[in-house]
Order: sequence, then structure tokens, then C-alpha cells
Amino acid sequence: MIKLAIALLLLTTFCGAQSPSAFAPASTNVWGAEYPRVSADGRAEFRVKAPDALKLQVNFWGAAKLEMVKGADGYWTATSAPLVPGFHYYTLIIDGAEISDPGSHSFFGGGKDASGIEIPEQSSPYYLPQDVPHGNVREEWYFSKVTGSWRHALIYTPPGYDTHPGKKYPVLYLQHGGGEDETGWVKQGHANFILDNLIASGNTKPMIVVMAYGYARRAGHADPDLTGKPFGSPEMMKAMQDMSQTFEDDVTQALIPYVDSHYLTLADRDHRAMAGLSMGGMQTFQVTFDHLDLFSYIGGFSGAAGQLVLGNRSLDPKTDFQGALANPAAFAKRVHLLWLGVGTDEPERMKAGIEKIHSSLDEAKIKHVFYESPGTSHEWQTWRRDLRDFAPRLFQ
Amino acid sequence: MIKLAIALLLLTTFCGAQSPSAFAPASTNVWGAEYPRVSADGRAEFRVKAPDALKLQVNFWGAAKLEMVKGADGYWTATSAPLVPGFHYYTLIIDGAEISDPGSHSFFGGGKDASGIEIPEQSSPYYLPQDVPHGNVREEWYFSKVTGSWRHALIYTPPGYDTHPGKKYPVLYLQHGGGEDETGWVKQGHANFILDNLIASGNTKPMIVVMAYGYARRAGHADPDLTGKPFGSPEMMKAMQDMSQTFEDDVTQALIPYVDSHYLTLADRDHRAMAGLSMGGMQTFQVTFDHLDLFSYIGGFSGAAGQLVLGNRSLDPKTDFQGALANPAAFAKRVHLLWLGVGTDEPERMKAGIEKIHSSLDEAKIKHVFYESPGTSHEWQTWRRDLRDFAPRLFQ
Repeated sequence: MIKLAIALLLLTTFCGAQSPSAFAPASTNVWGAEYPRVSADGRAEFRVKAPDALKLQVNFWGAAKLEMVKGADGYWTATSAPLVPGFHYYTLIIDGAEISDPGSHSFFGGGKDASGIEIPEQSSPYYLPQDVPHGNVREEWYFSKVTGSWRHALIYTPPGYDTHPGKKYPVLYLQHGGGEDETGWVKQGHANFILDNLIASGNTKPMIVVMAYGYARRAGHADPDLTGKPFGSPEMMKAMQDMSQTFEDDVTQALIPYVDSHYLTLADRDHRAMAGLSMGGMQTFQVTFDHLDLFSYIGGFSGAAGQLVLGNRSLDPKTDFQGALANPAAFAKRVHLLWLGVGTDEPERMKAGIEKIHSSLDEAKIKHVFYESPGTSHEWQTWRRDLRDFAPRLFQ
Repeated sequence: MIKLAIALLLLTTFCGAQSPSAFAPASTNVWGAEYPRVSADGRAEFRVKAPDALKLQVNFWGAAKLEMVKGADGYWTATSAPLVPGFHYYTLIIDGAEISDPGSHSFFGGGKDASGIEIPEQSSPYYLPQDVPHGNVREEWYFSKVTGSWRHALIYTPPGYDTHPGKKYPVLYLQHGGGEDETGWVKQGHANFILDNLIASGNTKPMIVVMAYGYARRAGHADPDLTGKPFGSPEMMKAMQDMSQTFEDDVTQALIPYVDSHYLTLADRDHRAMAGLSMGGMQTFQVTFDHLDLFSYIGGFSGAAGQLVLGNRSLDPKTDFQGALANPAAFAKRVHLLWLGVGTDEPERMKAGIEKIHSSLDEAKIKHVFYESPGTSHEWQTWRRDLRDFAPRLFQ
């Protein structure tokens, strides 16, 4: 085993860093994995050893499956069409089993550790580590009386946080999407590098970013029995509302007090923002509009009011959100930023939902920012761009 | 997709927390995954959907493979014999492809994101989160002139670190094993919870723990071409020595200065320890004995001098380590702790190596601690126990 350790150490350190061909190993690969590989034009080449398998496919989520072909050596290969730059979840389907690619690192999405592949965006390094001062990301465990459990959050502190102990910082609460967890914004999104680079450029205020686990079950409550209850049934809607209310209470009664008592925060509404992607955007609208005493910056990344907040109807600026939007001038004074974003290539139904909120706000003359990410779908590249546009507008 | 997100949210929050049978989902499972499940006596039951597969096995590393049996529903199942409590790496082999279990979280080992399963040790919660103050774990990126690259480390700061800014802390550098990375001590080892619990018990000094990435390539150097060079060849030994020297230089010239300038450390040898498991133990002996001006506490967990430091011969206390061990009384005064540990069930060859160093030290009357973890092999349960025994002896 000592020999094995040394051999591994060599193998994994000295192999696979460069490829002489036009394809190079993806940055999301585990050490020494030559595959998957990515070409300069964004094609991905997959290769998996499965000598006895009958059928293998690459399963890009939300896209058609890519058939793999078996070679005489027992390796299966496939090459994709050019992919949109950014991060893509995928799995392999091998003889009916949906599994991860052993060549790629895992990323929590779809409720499991799924494979991910990064396609470089050649001209745009804003989400990569640059030669600038780096903040750090801390794992925090806080006890929540709301859920009766220890909960995990990741917290970004900006460069210089530890060396200027007299300084206090504003806080952005930043939520992941459905099926993801609190690790998503760092591992998939590179939020820490995006903030490092924005702060270094001088146009973004140094801030603390809190990335919390977006699911919650109230202390002492049993799981609801949803057996046989269809999607949208009253029982399921009730369960959903209960959970989302529990998360809201956790944020406002446990998480914010914890952060404000353990970090060097400017602990008032003028220095507190919340944003989230997809499900996290819906949660953001619920939490912030219920607590405008706590928040003054609001961001919905490919997810805003939606079903969680409004049910199955459109936004009514006159009556929704306890009337907060009824007076546009008063709202603009109270809420420093209301921000909506969507990818131009998102599925029509999702895009239409966000656009409808945008147009309702426009019609009611409610000041807000509407950002469209060109050529990207319901994916992390959209949300990285959202953060790049959103963060510089905060706390100015 | 919004519907999907909500459905996922419900599925993953409300399912799988309890099992009515004697088997319960493992704590290492992804959300909602009913399998693998663990019984009170430590058996593990696996279940995977693979309707078209011809053969499935559970591959516990270093043990015999467990054959899975296909049911009429397309699910394959297998139940293990009782397993030693603790963390076990495993993979699935499906028609010749070695892959991860979609039901389990992934843990970096063997150079990839492999599956892991936790078998509870009923009477021993020292590595689980308790109702005690928690430190936090920070992700740090530091630029190393030695490697010419940004390097990643995880850093544990003890409870109260942020709220007592005047206080300074001793530092333990704690290394992972071969094929693992800097995430291992937190994800597999639960080093943060072990320290939280030890510190709360009052018998362990609050300390900072630095967990670094244990591989390094010197800036500007190309990978050596080891094609066709057998294990143990002069070329491979040379490459190995180069890499280990580079890591040593990174620790002493980049990492320690970074930590001492960014954290509240007691920056002298009396308040600096290093320990590591397996390969990390070998690295510890090399780094610390080359730099007794920097370190005064040394721990080898299932790995000590070994081939990396000594080549293929035994320890000679009179001449090895630049003669540091030649005078036992002087050594005991200079090095406050020399600690060796091994699991009683480790493979004979590994155990023999550690025991030989232990007996060489005994014969030379060199003060040291030798700890045996009962009933465990070359595995994380051994190293958790090592840390539990080692940490309270530091900085007293």
C-alpha cells in the first residue's frame, strides 16, 4: 500500500496535464484522467472503459442523449457537437443504470453527486482564479432552533477581511437551485472567484456572501405523507408552503442572527442583499418581500416570484407582496435594487415566466433591472453572468 | 423546470430520512436515497437500478468483491457481512466499468471521486457533530512561487477564533494520503468535528489545523517522461524525490509563511506540529526532520519514514535524519512529541514497516508514542482515532 500510494502520487501528478492533440482534458476532470477532453470549439470527447457493457450513452441534462460506440479495446467513446461554454451537468447511462463518469469530478445537482464538465469561454476569464487578492470560503455549522438541527452554510469573506479587523462589510445571501445544495455557488458557480475579480477591478464593494442550504424541515414536525398525492395536489402545495415558510424562518431567525453575531457585518437592511437562482430566486422573493425591514437589494436569477410565491397566477403589482409594489416611487426609495435575469435560450416556459414579471413591473412603472444572458439556457453560465452584473450594483 | 425544481425539493427533503426496517439509509447517502442501507450490526445493503446490465459487483477497496443479484424489477441488490465501523471507500463494477454508486456521496480517494459508506460506531461519537461550539473550515488559495501556481488548502479555525481577535493559536499541519487530496481530513476524517469535541472536553488546546494539497510540481519544470520505466526504477525514484522535495519547499517556503501572515498564529517551532496519514506520514517525517527549526511535534499515522525518506532500508537512529536522533536526551528535549500509529488489522507489510521503526526507536531509547488502533486496517477509522490520541498531546 505504501508502494501503491507512491505510484498513485506519481501517476496522478505527472500524467494528463497536457494533450498533444486539439483536444485537452477538461478542467473538471479528476487527476490524470485524459477523458473527457474538450476541443477549442467546445466539443467534448468522452471515453469510458466498460468491456462487457451492451449500451452506453452520455446524458446531458435537458438535451438529447449521445450514443457511445464500443472499440475493440473495451473502451466506449463519443464526441459531442460544440457545447455552449460554461458548466454542464451530465451522467452516463450504462445498460440502464444512470451513473457518474469516473473521469470527472462530481458536483451536487439533481439531488445527487453528478458529473460536470467545464467548456472554457476563451475570452472571458471573469470566473477563473486570476492573479488578484483572494477572499476565502468558510464552512459554518450553525444550530437552528427553527429546524432543531445543525445546518451548514458556506461563507465567502473578501480579501483583507482578516487583516482589517476594524472594518465591517455588507452581506449578500446567495441561494442555489432546486436539487442543488450550498456547495453549488462555489463549486459550479465559482462565486468566490467572480467576487475576487470584481472587487479587484474596483467597481464592486467588498462584501460577505452567505450561501446556505436551501431546504428546511420544522423542528418536531414529521414528514408529510405524500404517497399517492399528485403534483400540485392540495397536500403537496401545503407541504411546499410549510417547507418554504420554514426556510424563511430559518434565514431570518437563525441564519442572519448567526452571521451578524459571528462576522464583521453591517447589520442593517441598507447593507443586506439576497439573490438566488431558479428555486433560490423564488425563495429570495418570498424571504425579502416578507422582510423588507431586513433587505433592500433583491435578485432573481432565472427564478423570481413564480409558483412558490404567487401560485399559478401573474404578478399583480397593486396587491401582491403586501402592497410593497403599489406605489412605484415609494418602492424605488425603499428597495435599492430589484433585479431579474434570464438566459435567452432557456426553455420557453421558464423564459416566459420571468419575462411576464418583467413586463408587469414595466407596465406598473416599477424600477428594476432586467438582464438577458445571450445564448445560454437554465445553466450555471447564465447565473455566473447574473452575479457579474448583479454584484457591482450592490451597496453603492 | 420550475415544477421540476419544486418536485425535487420535496422529494429530496421529505423522503429517506427514516426506514422502518432494521436497515437505515447510510449517513453518506445523497438525499432521498434509500440505498445503501446499514444495519445495527454493520451490514450494508446495496441496491442499484441497471435493468440491462449483465453483471454487477460491489468493490470494497482491498477486500473481496461482493456479487449483486438482479431482481425482476431491474434492480440489483447485495448485502455485505458486518463491516468494521467507520468510513469505507467503494465502487461498483457494472459490466466491466468501475463507477460510483449514484446513491452515495463521492469522496476523493484513489485519484477520483469514489463512493463512500459510513458504518456507525454506536458507542463512539467523538467524530460526529455534537452540541458544542464549532470551529469553521476555510478554503484558502495561496500563490506558491515554488510551484508557480495557485494552491488550495483547507484551514480549520477553532471556536472563538473570530471573537477573540487578540488571541494567537498554535498550528497543526495535517496531511492526507496518496490518491486523496486536501478535502479528505474534513470529508472522510471529520477532523473539524474531532477537534471541536476534543477542545470542548477541555483536554485539547484550541489550535489551527492546516490541510494542504500534498502534491507539487516545481515551477518551470516539465513532467518527467516515465514511459516504460518500471516501479522503483532510478528514473521513477528520481521523479519521486523531486516531487517530494518540491512539496517540502512549498510547505516551508510558501504555505507556512502564508498561514503565519494571514492567521493569528503563534509562529514558532514550539507551536507548530505536523502529522499525516500514509503518504502524508512519510511527507511529515521528511518535512519535519529537514526543518526541526520549524517543527517540534511530529505524527506518522500508518506511515512514517518509509521508502520516501529512507529508501528500502531500516531506520538507523545514529545516522538518519542528519543525526537528529543520535542523542536521545537531546532529541527528547528538542522534539516535544514523536508519535507513530498503526491499525492492528493493517496489511502485514504495512504494519511491519511501522513496527520496525517503533522497535528501532525503542532500542535506541528514543522517546516516542506508539499507538495501535484495535481492529482497524489502513482506513479512516484508524486515522480518526490517531487524531483523537495525537491532538490532546500537542502544545501542552
